[in-house]
Amino acid sequence: MGTLIVELGDRSYPIHIGQGLLEQAGVYFARHGMSRKSPHLIISDGNTAPLYLNRLTDSLAHSGYKVLSFIVQPGEKSKSLSVYEEVITAAIEGGLDRSSSIVALGGGVVGDLAGFAAASYMRGIRFIQIPTTILAHDSSVGGKVGINHPLAKNMIGAFHQPELVLYDVNTLLTLPPREVSAGLAEMLKHGLIWDADFARWCQEHADSLLALEPEVLEYGLEKGCAIKAKVVSQDERENGLRAILNLGHTIGHAIEAIAGYGTFLHGEAISIGMVGSAMLGVRLGADPSLVEETRSLLQSLRLPVALPRELDTDTLMGAMMHDKKFKEGSITFVVPLSIGQVEIRKDIPASLVREVVEQLKEEE
Amino acid sequence: MGTLIVELGDRSYPIHIGQGLLEQAGVYFARHGMSRKSPHLIISDGNTAPLYLNRLTDSLAHSGYKVLSFIVQPGEKSKSLSVYEEVITAAIEGGLDRSSSIVALGGGVVGDLAGFAAASYMRGIRFIQIPTTILAHDSSVGGKVGINHPLAKNMIGAFHQPELVLYDVNTLLTLPPREVSAGLAEMLKHGLIWDADFARWCQEHADSLLALEPEVLEYGLEKGCAIKAKVVSQDERENGLRAILNLGHTIGHAIEAIAGYGTFLHGEAISIGMVGSAMLGVRLGADPSLVEETRSLLQSLRLPVALPRELDTDTLMGAMMHDKKFKEGSITFVVPLSIGQVEIRKDIPASLVREVVEQLKEEE
Repeated sequence: MGTLIVELGDRSYPIHIGQGLLEQAGVYFARHGMSRKSPHLIISDGNTAPLYLNRLTDSLAHSGYKVLSFIVQPGEKSKSLSVYEEVITAAIEGGLDRSSSIVALGGGVVGDLAGFAAASYMRGIRFIQIPTTILAHDSSVGGKVGINHPLAKNMIGAFHQPELVLYDVNTLLTLPPREVSAGLAEMLKHGLIWDADFARWCQEHADSLLALEPEVLEYGLEKGCAIKAKVVSQDERENGLRAILNLGHTIGHAIEAIAGYGTFLHGEAISIGMVGSAMLGVRLGADPSLVEETRSLLQSLRLPVALPRELDTDTLMGAMMHDKKFKEGSITFVVPLSIGQVEIRKDIPASLVREVVEQLKEEE
Repeated sequence: MGTLIVELGDRSYPIHIGQGLLEQAGVYFARHGMSRKSPHLIISDGNTAPLYLNRLTDSLAHSGYKVLSFIVQPGEKSKSLSVYEEVITAAIEGGLDRSSSIVALGGGVVGDLAGFAAASYMRGIRFIQIPTTILAHDSSVGGKVGINHPLAKNMIGAFHQPELVLYDVNTLLTLPPREVSAGLAEMLKHGLIWDADFARWCQEHADSLLALEPEVLEYGLEKGCAIKAKVVSQDERENGLRAILNLGHTIGHAIEAIAGYGTFLHGEAISIGMVGSAMLGVRLGADPSLVEETRSLLQSLRLPVALPRELDTDTLMGAMMHDKKFKEGSITFVVPLSIGQVEIRKDIPASLVREVVEQLKEEE
């Protein structure tokens, strides 16, 4: 079992990664001084709750905690204002007060939704993350929480750091293969932006990762979280460096938005986006081998690397213009220089991005 | 003209109080380094916009700013999730980015709504307050922003400090008398919790305040803001001291909630609540003259000091149980010891509060 501290001054928090942590949740709650007088609200989804909710509530109840739960439908559609309102209603009706916490048991959608509820309920109460997907190793570090607006993803949100993250790798064993790959896309991303050796390690251990071998998985998750924690510690509110974590996301978010949230898994969309970013990198001077290298790394994790031809380029470009990274009239793009190294480029002309989108379609 | 700095480390901000500031808004924007490339969204209401919106947009446009506006209906009902969603839609459609700001031109409702939109749009952008009511001298200090949930007031929100507050006392001259009195309730509250001399000054200058004499008003607003700023600087996120600002609010919020938001003005409801708090104080040992003194101060500002008999005590008690100050099973109450001095008491039994509610009805 490993423990990682995300260093953020008085908002620092630990991430515990290991097997069987769900059954020890009550012990961790007690160690972190959570209130036994106030109720705690677990948010989970219809896929995750049947598998793990009882284990979690049993452990918490055994340690003397009052626990309520609210189950949302699986999928990105639950990151809506109407589901958010339901969560707040559950919190009020359950009598949550300022010493209560909201606990996310699930993947990124549940974490983002529960986290924004915790950030905004009574102007902010404690938030605890219990991620059950590989993808969530990314979203559980850094405190970005939020919901979608019909016009654009993650438009409504906050920075709200969790109190504690419990990452029980046993909960990953039931993930369907497509979600495993999509989750590994973010893990590999951390290698692509920061650490070429880790990127290559991901490729070398691709089979073990895809087979969910616990020790390999634990190492990969800890390494991925550690890279993200290092970046976030240096730039909590994304004024500069932190933007490198968005590699592949400008194109990726646009793909998700126009294909309908949920058609592509987030990791699949950013996989295609990262290939696009490599193409952009080459157009801006990187070695031409970068595209093929990037593609090969992603393919080893069984991720898509091309855009479906039927996606309309104009619609995709339009969706990108609504992206949060579209600042003061120019697109900010994270551009790879080589594997493990990226730079943040502002004023990337839309015409160049359009060329990359076309190229991404040709490769299908 | 006076300038007050709210000291909050790297979130410190100035409050400028004076006549004719609306016409100089562009100059203040420039001085504070607001972006001229990104659009700024003014939120105002149907009462305020016809009077002051043009003056503000003209001043900003004259200084080279791109300005959009969104007008909501006047009144507490606009502090809803659905109006909040409309504001976010306007922000997205208007192309607001991370260098944009949301500007509140209006009273507390507009400030709370616009502030929460600024706090949560793209995880937080800049927020500028241009209060046009006396009451807003209170809400423009301290960064509490938020909206209502059908089950309870201000349940959804954030702490989001403004970048800048421009308080143009000329905009107060059009306030209807009832709103003037209600606004002065919060001004007097700052005296009641912190400064007996200021409380007595409010009574001595009641006629000038009610007549909106600019110099007297400026002094009162600056003094009220200064007391609040002192309290907030010591406890930004309401972990302790800041709770004294809630004098009269536990009963007051309950009155507002059950009478239907808007039936009582906020200041009227807390006026009654402050009399109730004085009654509680006497029951807990304060000098019996405290009730009459408090009542006399409030009445000099033409504020209500008794509860309508038709308000149901059980319903009122029920509404208090949902209040945010109901923590871990006991009610926290701000209890006056004398004029200018209060203490925060936890574990106030509900039965005692019920007695006070009954007494507040008898006095009608």
